[in-house]
Formats: sequence, C-alpha cells, structure tokens
Amino acid sequence: MHIGLVGLGRMGANMRARLRGRGIDVTGMDRDPSVADVATLPELVRALGPGPRVVWVMVPSGEPTRAVVDELAGLLSSGDVVVEGGNSHYGDDRVHAEALARRGIGYVDVGVSGGVWGRENGYGLMAGGSEEHVALLMPVFDALRPDGPRDEGFVHAGGVGAGHYAKMVHNGIEYGLMQAYAEGFELLTAQDLVTDVTGTMKAWSRGTVVRSWLLDLLVAALEEDPELGTIDDFVEDSGEGRWTVDEAIDRAVPLPVISAALFARFASRQGASPAMKAVAALRQQFGGHATRPVPPG
Amino acid sequence: MHIGLVGLGRMGANMRARLRGRGIDVTGMDRDPSVADVATLPELVRALGPGPRVVWVMVPSGEPTRAVVDELAGLLSSGDVVVEGGNSHYGDDRVHAEALARRGIGYVDVGVSGGVWGRENGYGLMAGGSEEHVALLMPVFDALRPDGPRDEGFVHAGGVGAGHYAKMVHNGIEYGLMQAYAEGFELLTAQDLVTDVTGTMKAWSRGTVVRSWLLDLLVAALEEDPELGTIDDFVEDSGEGRWTVDEAIDRAVPLPVISAALFARFASRQGASPAMKAVAALRQQFGGHATRPVPPG
Amino acid sequence: MHIGLVGLGRMGANMRARLRGRGIDVTGMDRDPSVADVATLPELVRALGPGPRVVWVMVPSGEPTRAVVDELAGLLSSGDVVVEGGNSHYGDDRVHAEALARRGIGYVDVGVSGGVWGRENGYGLMAGGSEEHVALLMPVFDALRPDGPRDEGFVHAGGVGAGHYAKMVHNGIEYGLMQAYAEGFELLTAQDLVTDVTGTMKAWSRGTVVRSWLLDLLVAALEEDPELGTIDDFVEDSGEGRWTVDEAIDRAVPLPVISAALFARFASRQGASPAMKAVAALRQQFGGHATRPVPPG
Amino acid sequence: MHIGLVGLGRMGANMRARLRGRGIDVTGMDRDPSVADVATLPELVRALGPGPRVVWVMVPSGEPTRAVVDELAGLLSSGDVVVEGGNSHYGDDRVHAEALARRGIGYVDVGVSGGVWGRENGYGLMAGGSEEHVALLMPVFDALRPDGPRDEGFVHAGGVGAGHYAKMVHNGIEYGLMQAYAEGFELLTAQDLVTDVTGTMKAWSRGTVVRSWLLDLLVAALEEDPELGTIDDFVEDSGEGRWTVDEAIDRAVPLPVISAALFARFASRQGASPAMKAVAALRQQFGGHATRPVPPG
Repeated sequence: MHIGLVGLGRMGANMRARLRGRGIDVTGMDRDPSVADVATLPELVRALGPGPRVVWVMVPSGEPTRAVVDELAGLLSSGDVVVEGGNSHYGDDRVHAEALARRGIGYVDVGVSGGVWGRENGYGLMAGGSEEHVALLMPVFDALRPDGPRDEGFVHAGGVGAGHYAKMVHNGIEYGLMQAYAEGFELLTAQDLVTDVTGTMKAWSRGTVVRSWLLDLLVAALEEDPELGTIDDFVEDSGEGRWTVDEAIDRAVPLPVISAALFARFASRQGASPAMKAVAALRQQFGGHATRPVPPG
Repeated sequence: MHIGLVGLGRMGANMRARLRGRGIDVTGMDRDPSVADVATLPELVRALGPGPRVVWVMVPSGEPTRAVVDELAGLLSSGDVVVEGGNSHYGDDRVHAEALARRGIGYVDVGVSGGVWGRENGYGLMAGGSEEHVALLMPVFDALRPDGPRDEGFVHAGGVGAGHYAKMVHNGIEYGLMQAYAEGFELLTAQDLVTDVTGTMKAWSRGTVVRSWLLDLLVAALEEDPELGTIDDFVEDSGEGRWTVDEAIDRAVPLPVISAALFARFASRQGASPAMKAVAALRQQFGGHATRPVPPG
Repeated sequence: MHIGLVGLGRMGANMRARLRGRGIDVTGMDRDPSVADVATLPELVRALGPGPRVVWVMVPSGEPTRAVVDELAGLLSSGDVVVEGGNSHYGDDRVHAEALARRGIGYVDVGVSGGVWGRENGYGLMAGGSEEHVALLMPVFDALRPDGPRDEGFVHAGGVGAGHYAKMVHNGIEYGLMQAYAEGFELLTAQDLVTDVTGTMKAWSRGTVVRSWLLDLLVAALEEDPELGTIDDFVEDSGEGRWTVDEAIDRAVPLPVISAALFARFASRQGASPAMKAVAALRQQFGGHATRPVPPG
Repeated sequence: MHIGLVGLGRMGANMRARLRGRGIDVTGMDRDPSVADVATLPELVRALGPGPRVVWVMVPSGEPTRAVVDELAGLLSSGDVVVEGGNSHYGDDRVHAEALARRGIGYVDVGVSGGVWGRENGYGLMAGGSEEHVALLMPVFDALRPDGPRDEGFVHAGGVGAGHYAKMVHNGIEYGLMQAYAEGFELLTAQDLVTDVTGTMKAWSRGTVVRSWLLDLLVAALEEDPELGTIDDFVEDSGEGRWTVDEAIDRAVPLPVISAALFARFASRQGASPAMKAVAALRQQFGGHATRPVPPG
C-alpha cells in the first residue's frame, strides 16, 4: 500500500518511519525540504498514482489543517480518502468531511496517542468515518498500532468526528491521571517519613493498583532528577483538555477531577494570581488596618 | 456587670472598648503593660471581687489558651465562669470544660466574628455551654452583638464546643465566599469588554443577588487600588478552614467549594509547585526529547 | 419619559410596575392579553409616538430575543434605541447591535439582577453600549435601580456586550456563594454539637463576615422549613454559570470554586451517576470476585 | 523460612498461597477454623519454634490490629519481628513499634497493593522499619512481590510508618486515577458520536498515554456489562483516601484532584443532598414565589 503523509514534524516523521518499517510505502510532504520526499501537495498527489489515493494529514489543528484539506479537495478525485490524524476538534471534522464529500472524496478522522514512543511501541488509534473508508485504511492502521490484538490498540469509534471525540476524552482523562500522580508526588515531597520518594514510586511499577505507563514515565523522570530541580512548574495545555470540559458543560456532565487538573495548569502559568490578590485584599480589609470609614452595609 | 478580659490584642482591645461603651466594667489583662489594666491573672481575679466571676479569654488558640485556662482553674472558685472567645478547636473546649468542671467552674465557648469592624458594628456571636452559664453572660453578649434583634447577631448554638463549631463552619463558608468573588474578579480582569471593573463590582452593592458585606469590602479595596497592585497574592489560612474540611471528611460530607478555596490558599503560598513540576516532567517524557531508553511498560 | 417593554413575565411585569411607580410611562407588549397593554410590536412602536423611541426587550434569551430584535429592526427608525435586558450571551449582543446599527438604531444591553425582590428593592443594573445611548436611558435606569448612590446599583460597564458580560460573571459568583453556604449548612446538619442550625445561621445575619442577602434568604427558607424537607435536591442551572466557566477556559483563568458549584448542580440532577458506577465497577474488579481471567497487563 | 500469618481473609489467604508456592513455610491463624492452620496466637507462636520468629498481621486496621499486636507483645521474645501488612494509619505504627520495642521485639509496617490479583501477579510492597528487620524479611518480600526487578515491586521506604504512609499516598492517587477514567467514561456515555464506548476504551489498552492496569480492569467490567447496568453508583471509601487529604491539609499541600475524587464518593452515597436542597431553596427564595415579607438586608 502507498499513502501520502502531509506534515513531517516529530509525530509525522516517526509515523513515516514506523509505516515504512512495516511495509507501507509513504511519500512525505513537508515545508522543510530536509525531511520531505516532495515539496508540494500537487507533487504528493501525483506521486500516489491512480486512485483510490490516501493522504494522511498530520499538521497542527485549526487553520493549518483547514488549509491542507481545502487544497487537497481541489487535487484529489472521487474515491480518494483524506485522513486527518492531528488533534482537530471534532466539529472541524464535520466541516472537512462535508467539503470533501461534495467532490466524492472520503474523510476519516483519527485520534493518535503515544507521543514519541509510538514509533517503537505503536500508536493507539481511534478512527471516525464510514465502514468502507476504515476498511480501506486498515493496513495503515495495523502498521501504526501496537502489536497484539487489534482491538487493544485500535477502534472504529463511530462516524466522522468520533475519532477525534474519543481522542479528546482520552486527553481529558490524561490530564486527570497526570494530576493525580503529581499530587501524590507533592505530598511525598512534603513529609519526611518516606525517605526514598523515587524508590517508592518505582516500587509501584508492578503489582500495584496504580501501575501505568504514566507512572513509568514519572519514575523515569525522577531517576534522572529526583527533586525535579531542572523542571519548571509551568504547564501548557494543548486544547483537548479545554474542549473536554467545554463539552461536559454542554452536556451537563460533572467533571470535577478533569476540570481541577485543567485549572491547575492554568494556575501554574500565572505570575501573580489576581484572584488570590483579591482574597488577600479582603483579609486585609476585615482583619485589620482599620483606618478607613465603614463601607455601606 | 464586671468581667475580666485576658488578651488585649486588636480583637481584645476593641471588645473592651465596645463593652465599656455599653456599660460593662472590664478589667483587662495583657503581657503588654501599655494596654493592660492589670499585669497578671491573680491580680485580674482579685479585681473581680466575690463571685460569680466571669473571665473572658481572648488569646491565640492552642497552647496560649490552654495555659490561661489552666492557670484560671487554680485561681477561680466554684460558680465562676470562664469564657473562651478565641478561635479554639471545638475539641479543646471539651478538655477545658472538663478540667474546670472538676472545680465547679463553668465554661462557655464563644465564636466571635466581625474583625476590626466589630467595635463599631458589633460582633456576631455563637455560644456553646449550659443554659445557666449563657444566661449569666447575656448582658455581655448583648453589649458585644450588633444592634437589632438579638437572634440576628447571637445564638446559643448548643452545649460546650457548639460555639466554636459554629464559628468553624462560618469561617469555612467565608473561605468559599471570598474565593467566589475573587474568581469573578479575576475573570473580569482577564477580558476587555467590561472596561470598568471596580465600577461593575460596586454596582453590585445594592439590589443584586450577590450583595454582601464581603463585596463591600472588596469594592473598598478596589477603590483604593483598582489593580490590587500593592497586594501580594499570598494568602494565609488561619486553621478554621482546615478544621472545616477535616470535619467534613470525618463525617463524609462533600465540600468541593470550601476545599477548593482552601487549596487555592495553599497554592498561593508556594514558590514552585512540586505537583506542577511533576506534570511538566511527564509531558516532557511522553512528548519529546526521546533520547532515553523505553521505560518498562 | 415613555418606553415600550416587550415581555411581561414575572420580571417584566415587576419592572413595569416599578417604572410606573417612579414616573416612567410604559407601554407593555406580551402575547398574554391579560397582562399586555398592546398585542403586537407594530402597535407598541406606534404607541411610542415620534422618536427617539426606546424599546426594552425582556424575553427569554436565544431565539425569542433574536426574533423580537429582528422584528424591531424593521419597525424602528434611525435614532431609536433597543435595550436588551434579558439574559443574552454577550456574543449575541454584538450580532444584535450590528444588525440594528445598519439602520441607525442604537442598542444597549443591560444585565438586571434582583429577582422578584427587585420591584420593591430595586434592581442592580449593568449596562453596555455607547455613552450617548446610556445617557438617553438614564431616567429609566434611575427608576429601576435601588435607592441610594447611583454607583452602588448601576454601572455603565463598557461597550455593547459589557452589560451581559458583567451579569454573566455576577451569576457565576452567585453560584459559588450559594454553594459555599449550602456546604456549610450540610456540615451543620451532619453533626450534633450545634443543636440549633437555623438559629446559628440566623445569628450570622449581622456583624459577621459572612452576612449577605443570600444568607438572609437561606435563613428565611430555614425558618419556614428547618430541615428543608419540602425541597427537592434537584438544582437547575440557567446558562450564565456555564458561560462563565466556558469563558474562563477560553481565557485560561482558573475557576475551581465556580466550576465546582456548577458541577454540583449537574450532579444533583442525575439519577444514577455513570461515573460512580464506573468507580464502583473498578473497585469490584480489583477488590474481589476474582473468577475472571487476568486482564492483559 | 517459616512465618506466622494472622488473618486469612481474602487477602491473607491469597498471600499464604503465594508464599507457600514460592517456598516460604506459613502457619496461618484465623478465627475461622475452616481456613486456619492454628486457632490461637499462642499456638501460632509455638508453631514457629525458636526465634527469630516472624509474625505477619493481616487483620482489619484499628482495634483488631491493635488487639493482635498487644497479644503478640506478650507472646513473642526479644529478636522476634511483627509485620503489620494491613491498612493501618502510619500513626498507629509508631504506637505499635514503641510497645513492642519495650520488649525487644521488632516491627515493620508494609503497605500491600494488588487486590485479588496479587496471588497470581504478585503484590506491590512498601516497607517501613529498620534495615536489619527489613533484611530479615527479604525472602518473604521477594516471594510476595511480582517477578521482575526487585525495585519495581518493593521499596524500603523509610523508618517505621513509612510503608503505610507510602500506601496511603498510593491509595489517594488511586482515587484520583479511578475518578479520571470514570469522568471520561461518563462523558462518552452522554454523547452519541462515539458509538462504541467499550471498544474505544479497550483501544486505549496499548500504545496510548492513558494505558494502565486500572484501564484494563474498567474494560474488563465494560465487556461484561457495557452499560454497567448491574452496578450501583454507590462507592465506599476505605480510609486511606481520607487520610491522604487530612495529611495534605496538615502540610498545606493542595490536592484538588484527590479531594474531588473523595468527595464524589461521599456524594455517591447520599440519598438527598442537604447542600443541594439549600441551593434549591435559595433559588426559590430569590427567583419567585414572593409571598413572604422582604427579609432584612
């Protein structure tokens, strides 16, 4: 099988390597000529030969993805399929799919999880689209997903948008999991009875209820730097966490843990907190320094 | 009526002034001779004459209060009453009451709210103890509480400890209220559609659902310093908030808002957050920088 | 001054009464002829005579408001002003204002707080729009707002949308305040040291840090029904709370307390919680009943 | 090596089986004669022969554990070691250790994680105590822990109490992890784009960032009952979650996620929520039904 891959950043380049290693021909396009096989989308489409052609898009969500999809709509033909494997909002998928469908071009959205380890371990994949299009792509999915039973690393989650919806929820959960380990780590650093914090978390790697890949990663980080002294306590968020909470609010689903994890990231990026200034100001007002006139009551 | 008052810090001194202004004789004892009427507890007890004597204790909770109560146990007589008006934990009240009861000395715990404004506005009072002791103290309570119906500024909440229990819950609520206003303030400072933030919060002073004394205080603070530029975002907590959450955990009562307000204060006092360092470290591990060997998985 | 008022539900009817009692002529339109002065918008506009005409819209947000504004756009003339006093999202205000501006019609959005008590106490008002339009409406604002200094019950918060933005934040804060009192109430009901729960909360009415109008309302409810036995623990949310959290997420502002209050409302409306079923299922899986094969690990 | 094991409930019986299967002699004592090797502690101690004797206690925390430790103090001799493998609070460990140390008897506390799967998979172990005592017990620890490197399933976390402290934090983290997955599951059940919820969560089993043993267990539960229709949304908590939050409060460590998970469990067990009744009552007071007199304010 031969596919086109648009976007050869860290994720895209790793995916190309894994696909090629497992027998999928890949023509990669990127603006950076040092990594690209072809320089433009028209070249990419030509390289794929006669259809049905498959082009996997792996560029940042929002405007960049939209631009690539729009250009592909003009280059591809009926029966071809565009795969959006980035982190698009599921609402964008509907727009993309409709625009392509007008020309008979198929669309599949895929949530891809695994980070930089995916090249070696395989990627967890969640696909949204029609049975027919998913079936066409199955050799690609099988090459990308981890070894083992297919259903432990791949799902056809539903129609267009379902793949990114599933990935959005996956990432919301991820926020909560990370914060849970982080709070436990912080409590361990705040006491002096447990003297081997790294060793304690490492001992959770096997047999315990909390064992997980994220725990393994945290242990790896602690083994490099047990105090995390080289790490700044400033945490970005990438969009999916926000979308998860927005979505829950729309559906009246309580998400106390995932939202708390999201807000902890927001707070981590503030210099001074206006809210806590306000609380401090209130304490000053009622607790002392009483030279001002009584406010209206 | 004539009472002794131990502890003439800001609260104690203001209370002495209000009591004297409303016809209660007060002999005040403090280690600071510039504010004290007498220098020692034995002097204080002598000054009160024959019983039933009333000594109101207004010193920091914990060891200082314990020390005063212990000394008073040796100085007072059967029929006298000790009033603990500080911020003791309700569990300490039981200990104090039992120690005094062995000598026939009564004990009443009183939660006192109002801060520096109490001298002028009166103090909200929550008392715990026997009917008989509370009745004996009613002239003092009436002098301290705000003008208006007695039941809008005073309650005999229950037996020994009930006064401080009620005050503890009052303060837990206070944490939640302050944080709610603070979060709203922060959101207003983060946008540019509402250009008059101070004026907006001031316009909530009358007629609105959120009008309150705390709002009035926040408006007063904003009128002095609309950006709160002179205020540090570092917020102490005084114990009652922690006790409220501890108590809720013991009784399996969910307190999502009050606990969130408490944790926001803890976070405000941290330099770097170990938890957020851990989250940042995790993101680094799975998102890139992949030169290390695959962790066990 | 003479204005038109569209929508004579509980809020609108009370506002008409207050306005008339304070010297403003009001022609009210409603689909319910038993409360309406006129039956249609064309009649309403005719009744207002030559311009500048002012029409205050007080119908449900979303589609109903949109329909009224659209119809008014065709009936009013350059120099007239539409006031949107309902609970529209601030984003809708921009759309309304632009549509009306094309015909030279002005637009002011007003957040109105006070509930059923506003007729007697006055309404807290937050206005968004131009200086000129706000000035034209000032007699109406002065009639609606509480007695006392204007700036304690009214603000010109900013341009179009600022009034509803301010009201949105006001309501978000309101959610947090209500939940804080409610958590304190629940803790008081869960213990037996404080035997007079209603009396305790009533004693907070004067002098204390937590005194507020919401506290007064809660005390009024408890005096009618101290156990709240007649009240269902099912709490609606009206939109502004959700919008507040959505807005905070867009701006990366942490809102732990306001979001917790919103989620508590969501949870109150659930029958069985799918999330807690999942937690229960997990406990069952790892804690016992071990007849199934070991899952992949 | 030969040890005594007190308490042959599900955990104790499984541990005995694993130990025997790996070459450790175990004499088990339980009140239930159908599972016990011996019926009393004196018999157990006699069966162990000359010292140093090792008795592993695996009974419920609190009073039951205390009673066993007290009786063992009178039966064992200098040089023997008691191992407390239940879920005691770390504060109890200090009391136990001091009582035993007066007679020269050693004490090691061990946090044991793994649930019913431990018999087959091995148990994650966190030990607190002296180097000497831990070394003596190492053959037992090696038999109980999972296969693989020792430090991935065992840690000597610190002095007496450190094992249970580490287990407490482990369980606090566990609460947060479980709630994060549960919230994600609930959001998936609330929408209809992702049509295969079980399949989606199963596809996270390999390659994804959220893969973990808890996820595997949740998938196993969903494969049995995809709607969790047979599961009640009522979730117990076992003590360690509460202790974790109590401990964090004592140390001023913010735990927004772990506390939210704990509170969700509390809420799951309530019939009607007094807090939400209070919020509903407030909404009723300000929103309508305005037949009562205006409250003071």
